[in-house]
Amino acid sequence: MWVFGEQEIQEAISLDMEVVKAIEKGFFTLVEKRVQVPPILRVDLSEYQGEVDVKTAVVKGEPYFAVKISSGFFNNPHRGLPSGSGMMILLNVETGFPEAIFLDHGYLTDIRTAAAGAVAAKYLALETIQTAGMIGAGTQARYQMKALALVRSLDQIRIWSRSRERAEDCAKEMKTELGVRVEVFPHPEPVVRGSDVVVTATPSTTPLVQKEWFHDGLHLTAMGSDSEYKQEVEVDAIASADRLICDDREQSFRLGELRSAWDEGRLRNKEVTELGDIVAGRAPGRRSNKEVTLCDLTGVGVQDTVIAIMAYHRLKQQKKGVRL
Amino acid sequence: MWVFGEQEIQEAISLDMEVVKAIEKGFFTLVEKRVQVPPILRVDLSEYQGEVDVKTAVVKGEPYFAVKISSGFFNNPHRGLPSGSGMMILLNVETGFPEAIFLDHGYLTDIRTAAAGAVAAKYLALETIQTAGMIGAGTQARYQMKALALVRSLDQIRIWSRSRERAEDCAKEMKTELGVRVEVFPHPEPVVRGSDVVVTATPSTTPLVQKEWFHDGLHLTAMGSDSEYKQEVEVDAIASADRLICDDREQSFRLGELRSAWDEGRLRNKEVTELGDIVAGRAPGRRSNKEVTLCDLTGVGVQDTVIAIMAYHRLKQQKKGVRL
Repeated sequence: MWVFGEQEIQEAISLDMEVVKAIEKGFFTLVEKRVQVPPILRVDLSEYQGEVDVKTAVVKGEPYFAVKISSGFFNNPHRGLPSGSGMMILLNVETGFPEAIFLDHGYLTDIRTAAAGAVAAKYLALETIQTAGMIGAGTQARYQMKALALVRSLDQIRIWSRSRERAEDCAKEMKTELGVRVEVFPHPEPVVRGSDVVVTATPSTTPLVQKEWFHDGLHLTAMGSDSEYKQEVEVDAIASADRLICDDREQSFRLGELRSAWDEGRLRNKEVTELGDIVAGRAPGRRSNKEVTLCDLTGVGVQDTVIAIMAYHRLKQQKKGVRL
Repeated sequence: MWVFGEQEIQEAISLDMEVVKAIEKGFFTLVEKRVQVPPILRVDLSEYQGEVDVKTAVVKGEPYFAVKISSGFFNNPHRGLPSGSGMMILLNVETGFPEAIFLDHGYLTDIRTAAAGAVAAKYLALETIQTAGMIGAGTQARYQMKALALVRSLDQIRIWSRSRERAEDCAKEMKTELGVRVEVFPHPEPVVRGSDVVVTATPSTTPLVQKEWFHDGLHLTAMGSDSEYKQEVEVDAIASADRLICDDREQSFRLGELRSAWDEGRLRNKEVTELGDIVAGRAPGRRSNKEVTLCDLTGVGVQDTVIAIMAYHRLKQQKKGVRL
């Protein structure tokens, strides 16, 4: 069995179009029913504002599948630690034997999650955009902007974060890494009103985004909600969107941003499209410059299996890792 | 993070009374509701006669908890590989950060599972026994006999296995390791009829043990069934037992040996006691020399957390492992 450390993983694989394409293909296999995705195993450690998820997915025809442990402990930053951690384990599909362990502390999750945002934006954002908005300024919010920049060119980024300090820090990073103008706002409203694409990536449990701020042509990707108690966008706003898209319908209705609207019966007369169906050409992407599109991404095990197999091939090519 | 290999784990911890006592305490904390045990994540790979389970449990007051991946691929022996594999991962309960990985290929599962059998036999087998019976002669069946020998003295072992060859090999091992007389039988009937304690530890999907073979004073531990399609003991036999015991009621009814009887409504008027309640003294153990007791063990995440923490302490004391 091979064990890979975080640094060599980061050197071998990063967020680029090859990753985006692989994740896009993953969503396609998902709607083609060529993937077995058991329900997530979830540990809630509310005492420590923490949660641990274990996800897996078996993709037909692939020799390995990933089991991923990912954690989010929202008190960690007060201890000087990142909130997220975790690892991926690749198992042989014919023997069950472990093939590789990626001690990535959540890095592969970060890039496969961001790549899903790029896939959503590729099909759903306006072809030409000026401004992207960030609701949240943490690691994933930043990756989302880098992912967006792979599929659309950007002039400006608007940022709101509960922590002004983090927003300012994020602004610096975005300026340097993406070479765009960046403005920090003390309220989410001007961020949403003034952006063609908005990504929400917070652990919020109360809605931050209101219906009144929606405008023609907006594409919003809601990343943050992945549990029964999180919510970033108010139900009225969700119900008002012209198009609702998600990565996995069952999971979105149970854990995602769409959960609250689903629970309140507000999706009864709404079509909710899975991203894979758009990738497969069975459902349209953006249909007009006016449409407001909202994509709820909860994260699906197939993304983990795809990224882990890709990382494994690259790391082996580069003769990295320790054999144990 | 620490990574431990199979050999150093085997050197640091083996099946002994200290392990049995720790697992016994684990069952106690379970019924005291001091444990969070999310439902198992299960991957079925029936194409390869394989399955992968991920289990976890958080025990209140413990600084770490285990996430365990365990696999059983029943074609592996034809490839010259053991059917079971897997690993355990210990996570910090306050930060979610991984603390240790045990590359044990299922060894810790083997001993924690055997230890549960010892706990069941301690409270449920006759005080004095002559003969123990094995239905199945694989790794876990053998561990079960070693576990039984920790809590009862044995004169003789009777073995039945679908594979005569494996039964003979097992007989040799039992003779050498436990210093008892051993006899191999071509049918399970004389094994059950002639044994005071019987352990079933097969992946059978059709019942092997019949009601007619039950006799006064018998204690049977059913280890094998841990999924919706496995069954080792016929429903009539289960319904005829004087006492039914299990490790976790909800799990046994869903995945364990009790599932079939539960599904057929045969447990409606039967009391099913959790092993932890017997350990806690809230339910009696064996009440008479006549009683037939049947204990269904499906394996609970709390056993993994208990054994992983114990292994971690011992391995650190012995300055073993690789820091990554």
